[in-house]
Amino acid sequence: MQKEPSLDEWIHRRVRLQSKLAKADMDGCLITQNVGIYYYTGSMQSGYLFVPAEGEPTYYVRRSYVRALEESKVRTVELGSFRVFGEQLKADYPERFTEAGQPVRIGADLDVMPAQLYMRLGQAIPSAQLLDVSSILRSERSVKSAYEIGRISHAAEVVAAALEEGLASLREGMTELELMAVIENGTRRRGHIGLMRMRGYNQEIMTGIVSAGEAAAEPSYFDGPAGGRGLSPAAPKSVSLRPIGRNEPILLDLGCCIDGYVIDQTRTAVIGKLAPELMSAYRTSEEIIRSSERLLRPGMAPEQIYVQALEMAESAGLAGHFMGYGKDQVKFLGHGIGLEIDEWPVLARGFREPLEPGMTIAVEPKFTFPGQGVVGIENTYLITEDGCRALTVSPEKLYEL
Amino acid sequence: MQKEPSLDEWIHRRVRLQSKLAKADMDGCLITQNVGIYYYTGSMQSGYLFVPAEGEPTYYVRRSYVRALEESKVRTVELGSFRVFGEQLKADYPERFTEAGQPVRIGADLDVMPAQLYMRLGQAIPSAQLLDVSSILRSERSVKSAYEIGRISHAAEVVAAALEEGLASLREGMTELELMAVIENGTRRRGHIGLMRMRGYNQEIMTGIVSAGEAAAEPSYFDGPAGGRGLSPAAPKSVSLRPIGRNEPILLDLGCCIDGYVIDQTRTAVIGKLAPELMSAYRTSEEIIRSSERLLRPGMAPEQIYVQALEMAESAGLAGHFMGYGKDQVKFLGHGIGLEIDEWPVLARGFREPLEPGMTIAVEPKFTFPGQGVVGIENTYLITEDGCRALTVSPEKLYEL
Repeated sequence: MQKEPSLDEWIHRRVRLQSKLAKADMDGCLITQNVGIYYYTGSMQSGYLFVPAEGEPTYYVRRSYVRALEESKVRTVELGSFRVFGEQLKADYPERFTEAGQPVRIGADLDVMPAQLYMRLGQAIPSAQLLDVSSILRSERSVKSAYEIGRISHAAEVVAAALEEGLASLREGMTELELMAVIENGTRRRGHIGLMRMRGYNQEIMTGIVSAGEAAAEPSYFDGPAGGRGLSPAAPKSVSLRPIGRNEPILLDLGCCIDGYVIDQTRTAVIGKLAPELMSAYRTSEEIIRSSERLLRPGMAPEQIYVQALEMAESAGLAGHFMGYGKDQVKFLGHGIGLEIDEWPVLARGFREPLEPGMTIAVEPKFTFPGQGVVGIENTYLITEDGCRALTVSPEKLYEL
Repeated sequence: MQKEPSLDEWIHRRVRLQSKLAKADMDGCLITQNVGIYYYTGSMQSGYLFVPAEGEPTYYVRRSYVRALEESKVRTVELGSFRVFGEQLKADYPERFTEAGQPVRIGADLDVMPAQLYMRLGQAIPSAQLLDVSSILRSERSVKSAYEIGRISHAAEVVAAALEEGLASLREGMTELELMAVIENGTRRRGHIGLMRMRGYNQEIMTGIVSAGEAAAEPSYFDGPAGGRGLSPAAPKSVSLRPIGRNEPILLDLGCCIDGYVIDQTRTAVIGKLAPELMSAYRTSEEIIRSSERLLRPGMAPEQIYVQALEMAESAGLAGHFMGYGKDQVKFLGHGIGLEIDEWPVLARGFREPLEPGMTIAVEPKFTFPGQGVVGIENTYLITEDGCRALTVSPEKLYEL
């Protein structure tokens, strides 16, 4: 097992970003988010990473500089006081930060950077104009290296083992929370960092969603097809204290994060038998995922896969139940996955950039039946040279217990 | 047990905020963060809450409107498309959003709102100027109601029970991760939502920190006196795979989140005996927390408590080890706690607004010895009419096993 990315890989990541920055007519890019900093430095300490459009990046570290020095693959210096950060940048990159003429065009991760920090950075670097390059940063991360695919695959093994333990413990009358506690303990003991990072504002996910019967079908703020009831209005997602009953679908939408990399998968289980309507919807989710697999190959547009799934749901008479119900439907079939669970590409309208080998995508056809539950499947796939390969290793079936 | 805040409490929260907004010459306030929305509506669905300086607030909900309607204590409407949000506001608050004259002064939670959203809102509401009122929002939440204190107290019982289970399972050679998995399972089974919300950008905390010996003393990005080694550079905090040995301090900095409310406490344990130097530092942390308790009362400035602690650490010859080591020391002794773990007031220089009854504050004197470990104590206190009362219920002692 490759313990960390090779030196070449760090350079490759940086050079790829620099070529995109130059194309977008940027003088450089300031990355402030922990995940973004880690992707380009191998370290996740607090501070800012400046990547010039050409030349050596610098990691300005507030805390811990000592740890950052040990971990970082790029030039690493101590961040002075915030007030002098602009001076530091100018001293390190005199050819970029000039007093005269047009403001320097600096891209930044404005989709996650708080507005207060954005304004403070604007004051600290008065010669610069901070511009949103989050779409460059997100698309840059969509193609994974062998190292990254190895980490996601390892996470897939961990969640599969934990799911097995959960299923072995499942009993009628057990609460959703009790079942989740078993599964989370299984992922945690095997190295899950405790949460799955999510880029979207106000989105939270630790180990996924365990939710059964009508609780799973409750609408949710969560940016996914099903969120679950949750423990209270202050935790309105995933497990509740509802006991799991017979003959109702149990949604097991699970993942974990190993060395920063996330896996995502869904299995449906039932103690007893599903009602014919739900069984038929489950079969449709199987058909959709099979048909999606045939389109998951280089050159295909992500939106085509979503559109095909929509058509199949419609043909099956399930359009109103697909990816949520009614007003609460989401408009995607799947999502990129890596350091964050909501990476690019999204299998949704508007995503037309063709798939490339090395992309990792979770595909999650699901059907919601208010009052009854949610059924569906989710696998994470790797796009290969000529098709796709599932990274998820949990046996794919309806788990009838 | 009070199941939820009373109707009076919701009104009281809103009126208090409105009086602060009016004083700051704001026309209103737009809250976008999940925790802030929950505090004023009782619901945590995605959308925006507008609180005018006077009159009825409106909760504009994107998803799930259905769930928000069930939960919300304020006027709740569906958020139309983002483009028309400005028109919606103008229609609902014609007296505030006028075309002519000065831009409307709208406060917002700019310390957490992403810059991209800030810019989009600016475009959607062209008549408004969005101003940072995060300090108002944070100080507003610092005084807790009886309901909130009840929730924090319940969280205190949960973490105490989980700690007991962890200590009962503790064996020499067990890894930090294995011990943490037992404790997390204990909090989770009792209703911990899985993470403790933290306001600071890039800060993450699920159940706290379990870290022993030299791993606990490693410097960390984490905004606390000790962070721990972590599982990898991509999870550089809390537990590692290091086995716990004899005669080394085991830092158990733990919490959980019940119905949205967080508790935070630290206990130090050892299998065997601590070295005299560490034992002496542990005794100093006891003395500091006792002296802090005497200052924790209405009218006292938070910074005085920090200064007293600094002086005591210095008198003990431990100034360089206090609240971290060397360059990686943090400049506070404690922090407010409630819906977030990093609430106000902070026991730090610059916090001069006097303490008030109802504030809940975690006080955490700790000493770091590189190569050896971290010792200390942390309790969460409620400021009462004439002093303070510990909400933490775990017996306070050095746990020698």
